[in-house]
Formats: sequence, C-alpha cells, structure tokens
Amino acid sequence: MKLYSYWRSSAAFRVRIALNLKRIPFEYVAVNIAPGVNEQLSDAYLETNPEGRVPALETERGTLVQSMAILEWLDETQSGPSFLPDDALLRGKCRAFANTIACDIHPLNNLSVLGMLGDMFGADNAAKNAWYHNWIVRGFRPLEKLASAPRKTQYLYADVPGLAEILLIPQIWNARRFDVDMAPFPALAAMEAKCYKLSAFEHAKPENQPDAP
Amino acid sequence: MKLYSYWRSSAAFRVRIALNLKRIPFEYVAVNIAPGVNEQLSDAYLETNPEGRVPALETERGTLVQSMAILEWLDETQSGPSFLPDDALLRGKCRAFANTIACDIHPLNNLSVLGMLGDMFGADNAAKNAWYHNWIVRGFRPLEKLASAPRKTQYLYADVPGLAEILLIPQIWNARRFDVDMAPFPALAAMEAKCYKLSAFEHAKPENQPDAP
Repeated sequence: MKLYSYWRSSAAFRVRIALNLKRIPFEYVAVNIAPGVNEQLSDAYLETNPEGRVPALETERGTLVQSMAILEWLDETQSGPSFLPDDALLRGKCRAFANTIACDIHPLNNLSVLGMLGDMFGADNAAKNAWYHNWIVRGFRPLEKLASAPRKTQYLYADVPGLAEILLIPQIWNARRFDVDMAPFPALAAMEAKCYKLSAFEHAKPENQPDAP
Repeated sequence: MKLYSYWRSSAAFRVRIALNLKRIPFEYVAVNIAPGVNEQLSDAYLETNPEGRVPALETERGTLVQSMAILEWLDETQSGPSFLPDDALLRGKCRAFANTIACDIHPLNNLSVLGMLGDMFGADNAAKNAWYHNWIVRGFRPLEKLASAPRKTQYLYADVPGLAEILLIPQIWNARRFDVDMAPFPALAAMEAKCYKLSAFEHAKPENQPDAP
C-alpha cells in the first residue's frame, strides 16, 4: 500500500498508527501541505484525492480517502488486532469517543480553518491559538471523564488499542504542539504515555516521518 | 428507543432518517439548543450526554451519542436495509463521502462555531454567512464530482439509500437554509429530490418535527 501523508497532519498520523498496528508495510509518499507550498492542490495529487487533503491510501483495488473511512476499511479487511470491541454497544461508545475528536475538535483546528480565520477575520497567531485551545479543552473535558471512569480493559475500550486511541494520540500531540495545558486531563495523558510504549504509535509520530524537518 | 433531538440539528436529522429507514419507532424528546435557551447544557441533559450536544439515542442497553457512531450502531444491530454496500472498497468510498460532510463541512457550521466567530472576532451575520458558504461550497465540489460520475446503482453507492444520502440530505437542507446556490451542484440536488420522495427522508425533515415552530 501507498500512504500519501504529511508528517504533521494528524489525520495522516491516525492512519500511520493503524497501518503499524495491523503490521502492514507501506510506501510513504510525502505531500507537503504547508501554506505557500500546497502540494495537495497540485493537479497530480488532485487525481489521487479530488478533495485536496491528506491522507489518501492507495490499495491494490483503488484509492481511499478520509481517515475515518480508511480506518474502518483497514479494520474490515486486514488481519491483526481489531480496532473495535466485539460488543455492539461498546463499539458504538468507542466510535463516539473517536468521533468527538474527528468531528468536534480536529476539524476546527486544521490548517485550512486557521488560515481562513486569518483571511476573513484578520486573526493573528494569538487569536488562532485561543480558538485552537477553546475547541481542544471543550472536547477533551468529556473525553477525560470517559477515560477516567473505572474500566476492566487495558485500553479505553478493549485490551488492545483501537479507534479511540488512534484518534486520541494525534490530537494530544497537536494539543501539546500548541501548548495546551494537559494537567486537567490526567487520564488522557496517562493513556498517551501508555500508547507511546508501543512502537506502532512511536513510529507513527510526526517527528519520526521521512518528511519531518 | 428514545431520540434526543432538536428540529434544526442536522446531526439529529441524520439519525431521524436512519431510524425511519430501519422502520424503528422512537420517542422524540426535544432538546432546545437555540442560543439563549441551551437546554443541552442543563444538568439533566448532561447526564444523558456529557458532551452537551444532540443527538443522543437511548437504547435498551444504554445511551449512545455522536451521530456517526449511532448510525453505525443502527446498521450493525438493526434489521432492514443496510446503510453500507457489501463490497469493502465501496463501503470505504461510501463512508468517505459521508465523512467529508461529517468532518469537513458540518463541524465548521454548527451553532457553537458560528457563536464563537461572533464572540471572538465580532463576526456579524453577513460574515458568518460568508464563512458558512465557503465550507459548504468547498466541500460540495468534490462530492458533486462523485455524485455525477456514471454509476450502476440507484443511489450513490447502492440501490437503497445509505450513509452517503443520510449525511447529504441534511447538509443540503442546511445549505438551502443559508441561501447557498445549489445550481453548481445539480447531481447533489437531483439526489436530494430523489430521497425526498421517500417518506423516511420527508418525515425526518426539520419542519416536520414536533418542536418545529
């Protein structure tokens, strides 16, 4: 498989973790989405992903886009540890945890949105930072409650890391990058530390990618 | 089942369509999320959904939140037409279509975000409208390409409506509410017209809910 990725994209970070957890070797294709470079909008890349975003995963049968759809596809088709628990209600709860990040936190903080805040409202870095912090803190609060509730499993919803951790760790990486204070979120931070002990998470880190500066 | 809903919430609209498609009777519990009312932040509702958002679905076994997780749970556990095609790659493509709306369009336009634009940047209605239009148009462009490509199925990914249509129709409803010109998106508009011929979609419309004014 071929992964179109950008080292600092947290959506690409998710898919890197997932590929590692499933022990799938993949070719890393760097797409530089940094403002001013915008390789994701090149004609060549738009043929791979007409949405002009990373990640995209080229499989033997065709190319998939949107990290959440890619993660579900990997789980449905590839061997290795499952990303979702067996019990249907728990699967729903695990997906809800992941979607709080995918739908309520991350979309508000990605590069295109921060850029638009500057373009439309003249937001400077301090204002963008305040915006960023607001959505992370608001989103992390209920997740911290979930993560600190008593549980019988090693990870949030199972004895192996799954969709919840695949979404959580990149979002915390982003939070730290923007100096969000993690002290109010000890259970989330503990899960982060636990996950980084696994090479699947450690190897997927932005700073460990070939296109990292 | 009991659905905590707000007539104009497009995430709740999705779940209403899904429940109707599966022919599941449900009790409608109105939660008024209008600015200044904020019933979703009441102590009572926060016990149902600590995230303070609609929808939430109370099932016999427990309560589920996050519309995308609820839709997957309904599809995994309830009889009736499937929301996803059988083929794994097509499932991935159907989920990607849905996630473009769930992750790239809708989160940028929900009430809490528009409110924050006002609070932080003094955005007036015209500015909020411009913001809203930008994300819808940017998101609809690749979706229109997908919807206008030749296909052998009655709906976007199967012969019955599924996840793609469940996400698309509420997002178009929102677009129309904010006077987004749908002329550049004829294939999406045609799918909308086709879906509203089904009572599952028609009955789920915001204006047909008990808490609509």
